[in-house]
Amino acid sequence: MFLQTLFIFSLLIATTQASVLDFCVADPALPVGPAGYPCKKAAAVTVDDFVYYLGAAGNTSNIIKAAVTPAFSPTFPGVNGLDISIGRLDVAVGGVIPFHTHPGGSEILVVIQGTLCAGFISSFDNKVYFKTLNKGDVMVFPQGLLHFQFNSGKIPSIAFVSFSSANPGLQITDFAFFKNDLPTEIVATTTFLDVAQIKKLKGVLGGTN
Amino acid sequence: MFLQTLFIFSLLIATTQASVLDFCVADPALPVGPAGYPCKKAAAVTVDDFVYYLGAAGNTSNIIKAAVTPAFSPTFPGVNGLDISIGRLDVAVGGVIPFHTHPGGSEILVVIQGTLCAGFISSFDNKVYFKTLNKGDVMVFPQGLLHFQFNSGKIPSIAFVSFSSANPGLQITDFAFFKNDLPTEIVATTTFLDVAQIKKLKGVLGGTN
Amino acid sequence: MFLQTLFIFSLLIATTQASVLDFCVADPALPVGPAGYPCKKAAAVTVDDFVYYLGAAGNTSNIIKAAVTPAFSPTFPGVNGLDISIGRLDVAVGGVIPFHTHPGGSEILVVIQGTLCAGFISSFDNKVYFKTLNKGDVMVFPQGLLHFQFNSGKIPSIAFVSFSSANPGLQITDFAFFKNDLPTEIVATTTFLDVAQIKKLKGVLGGTN
Amino acid sequence: MFLQTLFIFSLLIATTQASVLDFCVADPALPVGPAGYPCKKAAAVTVDDFVYYLGAAGNTSNIIKAAVTPAFSPTFPGVNGLDISIGRLDVAVGGVIPFHTHPGGSEILVVIQGTLCAGFISSFDNKVYFKTLNKGDVMVFPQGLLHFQFNSGKIPSIAFVSFSSANPGLQITDFAFFKNDLPTEIVATTTFLDVAQIKKLKGVLGGTN
Amino acid sequence: MFLQTLFIFSLLIATTQASVLDFCVADPALPVGPAGYPCKKAAAVTVDDFVYYLGAAGNTSNIIKAAVTPAFSPTFPGVNGLDISIGRLDVAVGGVIPFHTHPGGSEILVVIQGTLCAGFISSFDNKVYFKTLNKGDVMVFPQGLLHFQFNSGKIPSIAFVSFSSANPGLQITDFAFFKNDLPTEIVATTTFLDVAQIKKLKGVLGGTN
Amino acid sequence: MFLQTLFIFSLLIATTQASVLDFCVADPALPVGPAGYPCKKAAAVTVDDFVYYLGAAGNTSNIIKAAVTPAFSPTFPGVNGLDISIGRLDVAVGGVIPFHTHPGGSEILVVIQGTLCAGFISSFDNKVYFKTLNKGDVMVFPQGLLHFQFNSGKIPSIAFVSFSSANPGLQITDFAFFKNDLPTEIVATTTFLDVAQIKKLKGVLGGTN
Repeated sequence: MFLQTLFIFSLLIATTQASVLDFCVADPALPVGPAGYPCKKAAAVTVDDFVYYLGAAGNTSNIIKAAVTPAFSPTFPGVNGLDISIGRLDVAVGGVIPFHTHPGGSEILVVIQGTLCAGFISSFDNKVYFKTLNKGDVMVFPQGLLHFQFNSGKIPSIAFVSFSSANPGLQITDFAFFKNDLPTEIVATTTFLDVAQIKKLKGVLGGTN
Repeated sequence: MFLQTLFIFSLLIATTQASVLDFCVADPALPVGPAGYPCKKAAAVTVDDFVYYLGAAGNTSNIIKAAVTPAFSPTFPGVNGLDISIGRLDVAVGGVIPFHTHPGGSEILVVIQGTLCAGFISSFDNKVYFKTLNKGDVMVFPQGLLHFQFNSGKIPSIAFVSFSSANPGLQITDFAFFKNDLPTEIVATTTFLDVAQIKKLKGVLGGTN
Repeated sequence: MFLQTLFIFSLLIATTQASVLDFCVADPALPVGPAGYPCKKAAAVTVDDFVYYLGAAGNTSNIIKAAVTPAFSPTFPGVNGLDISIGRLDVAVGGVIPFHTHPGGSEILVVIQGTLCAGFISSFDNKVYFKTLNKGDVMVFPQGLLHFQFNSGKIPSIAFVSFSSANPGLQITDFAFFKNDLPTEIVATTTFLDVAQIKKLKGVLGGTN
Repeated sequence: MFLQTLFIFSLLIATTQASVLDFCVADPALPVGPAGYPCKKAAAVTVDDFVYYLGAAGNTSNIIKAAVTPAFSPTFPGVNGLDISIGRLDVAVGGVIPFHTHPGGSEILVVIQGTLCAGFISSFDNKVYFKTLNKGDVMVFPQGLLHFQFNSGKIPSIAFVSFSSANPGLQITDFAFFKNDLPTEIVATTTFLDVAQIKKLKGVLGGTN
Repeated sequence: MFLQTLFIFSLLIATTQASVLDFCVADPALPVGPAGYPCKKAAAVTVDDFVYYLGAAGNTSNIIKAAVTPAFSPTFPGVNGLDISIGRLDVAVGGVIPFHTHPGGSEILVVIQGTLCAGFISSFDNKVYFKTLNKGDVMVFPQGLLHFQFNSGKIPSIAFVSFSSANPGLQITDFAFFKNDLPTEIVATTTFLDVAQIKKLKGVLGGTN
Repeated sequence: MFLQTLFIFSLLIATTQASVLDFCVADPALPVGPAGYPCKKAAAVTVDDFVYYLGAAGNTSNIIKAAVTPAFSPTFPGVNGLDISIGRLDVAVGGVIPFHTHPGGSEILVVIQGTLCAGFISSFDNKVYFKTLNKGDVMVFPQGLLHFQFNSGKIPSIAFVSFSSANPGLQITDFAFFKNDLPTEIVATTTFLDVAQIKKLKGVLGGTN
């Protein structure tokens, strides 16, 4: 009798309770909105929606000798709507994550292996806050500010970076300036860089005009 | 070789990077939600989604001798999801923007031409904060508070008003009270206005009952 | 003339004004997203979307002698997108709302009839803030903290509970621990409860494994 | 040994854990900020900070035959920072809560006794959503919109109203228009009300000019 | 009698009502926090706290032939806590506001005089959205993205820019890269710019190392 | 001349620019508020405010054979106001982080060493989402939901956990139930646990009554 009535009670609550989950796993087949993707139906959600693998080293066989592997809402549906996401940095010896910003969130970094010199720049007085980080060091980069990381050690570096957004964005300044068809003349006007410098980097990055 | 590998790197990032843009241009054909409209697909976005023309004077040949021209998310898709919007006020000599509120945001106004007397009322002690504003004067109106603007000068006035919401709403008290079918008796009960006054303004504004 | 021109003015505003309402009544036929449901079209909204009936006593003929009747966004479409919702508690003599949390919002409770002993636990120092509440007493439960209510009087108790979310969620600790297929061994490991205790409550609540 | 080591563990966590509570009980002696009051120190917090008494009927021996008793953060310190608050409405037979807005939050109302006619006005098309509410009826009023309640029954009415803000504000339109020193001429210009009507209500409410 | 009792009613509400204003004018003498400055006491607030003068042309007799005049919370106390602020741009013929971001908010710009070529860069695909804007044109720049404005006409340009934050910040890329003591070697590593180019711009902007 | 005038320009901007930083490093000597601590003055901020060391293993010589080392705003001032924080988990062989919630934020976990079995429980249907995680696996735990982690492998496990709040809180269910003076009778009423079980765990954790 005890069993039966409590069981009934729990069914009652389940029936009247909200039919909406405590999370909103992205359904990327539906159109995204300002707050993220619409949610997958409950029946389709599995634990794998909340799990992502960042154990593989990114390919650093490139000129910057570094790789960024994001686990943001477009590829990691479980973080949709949760104001959190993560990524992995692999930075080979001599490698660099060039100056960039995340328009949509702050970043916290923890070094897992090796040594990274990392810093950000305040807009208030252009002061640079930078430091050499070793294994176990954490550094926070406030939202929207220019920051960088480069390997200042003698072995490959690995770090994990978390963000206060399910999809913080990533704007690499060099790519923004040089990897598109913005006319060289406009780039020169708006950056004060020399035309030769602009053309050189446009060449490297595949920019035109 | 340098060119090639950096180019490869940038492609790699582009591939693994989020497939979601840094903005969410409204697709008004899709159903709006609490956070705004779903986003247009990237390929369909153009610079014109982020540009709006407010250079034309509103038509002030009406009894209030004023016009409000909003550029909110329903008509200006680029502001969708961004917590910002704008509008233009044209107030002819003797014209007025009657008491109103914006339920969804604060307003900042800058006078471009002429003279406006503008003010808002605190709910704390009903104190009225008002002032005559000339060209170049800025005034801020805190969210949800009753405020007004009228031309207190001798030439037509123009102002731009920005809001802390992509769609702040606009509730003109007179319209709310008199331009609908709320029975006169209820209006009298809930406003303490005289029945004759109510009927007169219902008549002017096309209200019934 | 006066009538006509003001009428024209109001039409002008209506035309240029946003075609989006000041609220977003849920259309539960559309897929929910992180910010709630998409909005019903204006023409389909009626006052009944904003009204809900909580006048009926919940059925307390169950083992906890209590009932929770929520009016959250999935069933009360008018609160969608508004960061507010409400529910009704009926607690018979000897009844209890067992320890639970609302993952998505804070709660404010007002006693309408009878006596409730209510409390919550701070995570800072595990201090319990609890008190016997009588008719007219209000108590607030900060977001996400474990709390309880039980009838400590001699007549049935009724309370209304409001939340700072349109859909705050409700996680009853006993249900979370015992009313599912989480293996007994894992429950024991993660709660330090005795296996016999776990099996007993799994039995009561219909849990397995 | 088991006892001792687990006890040590819990002390360890307590030491390294955040010294900030899960709530922020207002210390009204400190200057309020945009997010509310600074928090009382942990040692000074008691359960009574989270409890408020709304069991006493408000005094309705006044011309509107109604009373509003708020439990907002300035007087109810436990709601500070929590985006929730509550109040009590007493509306005698023939009484009314005149048109008003809450600039900072949405409202949810539940009738405890008697009958209230309640409604709000959309800014989109000035449509009035109103209904007669009886005991047990709930109604939600979206943020910032003009709304009213009046007793349409034959016994005194009581309702509780909750808000999606610790301090939602309350702007009664009549008070804003007539209970201050805003010159009659400006009130007339910005409301289209007749001067005689304005002067009459200024007289009633103690306004000047 | 009518007068007297309504007056009493209004006093009653005023007494029980929140003692906190509907706004939070900054008291810059008190320490700022994450949500802005603590509020000035009510008695000290005047209409001038909500008004700011942006009618004066900024001094464009400098190398960029442009001036930015912000009205943010540190200097315009009325916007504190309101998620809105404004500024004025003066751009002489040939002048430019170089590439920059606002880490804390989106921007909406309206041209008041002259012609501006303005654009921003998406981080998604480095696509540049830019256009020549004339008097009356509005353009929105999504939060945190690199953008620029330069005078592409034959007369001085004036624009007003509003932001979705009381203090959005302003990070000019050139200043961040070159106007500080970040070692040239690190700048080169993190920007791919040539050392000669870096030293040249450090020289211009007063950077060292 | 070029150098001089650009230098002057930059000084001009610096002067008129906001005197508020892009971040708000906690000054823990000042009273905390709902949005966090007031900010340290700019001159007192150093890079070390943004850096924290989590490289040391927590002491797992305790009964749960685990340690949680948080880097939240009370101890890591640089995250104040940024909606991000981090912590380190050390879980020895056989160790466990018992069921707990974070009332103020979502969590993302990445395994650095060893094997963890981790899971959370939905409040919708009490479904348990759990999985064995190995090095490089990431799992996200939605805000406020009960979750656990235990070492299911044969070597000590290490993980980093990030949160969508500068101070997310940590409520361990066992501590909340048993590590305080809440009377055993009330615990029994509100948890359905047997009195003997409660007394046993109160004994272990130092609870009384």
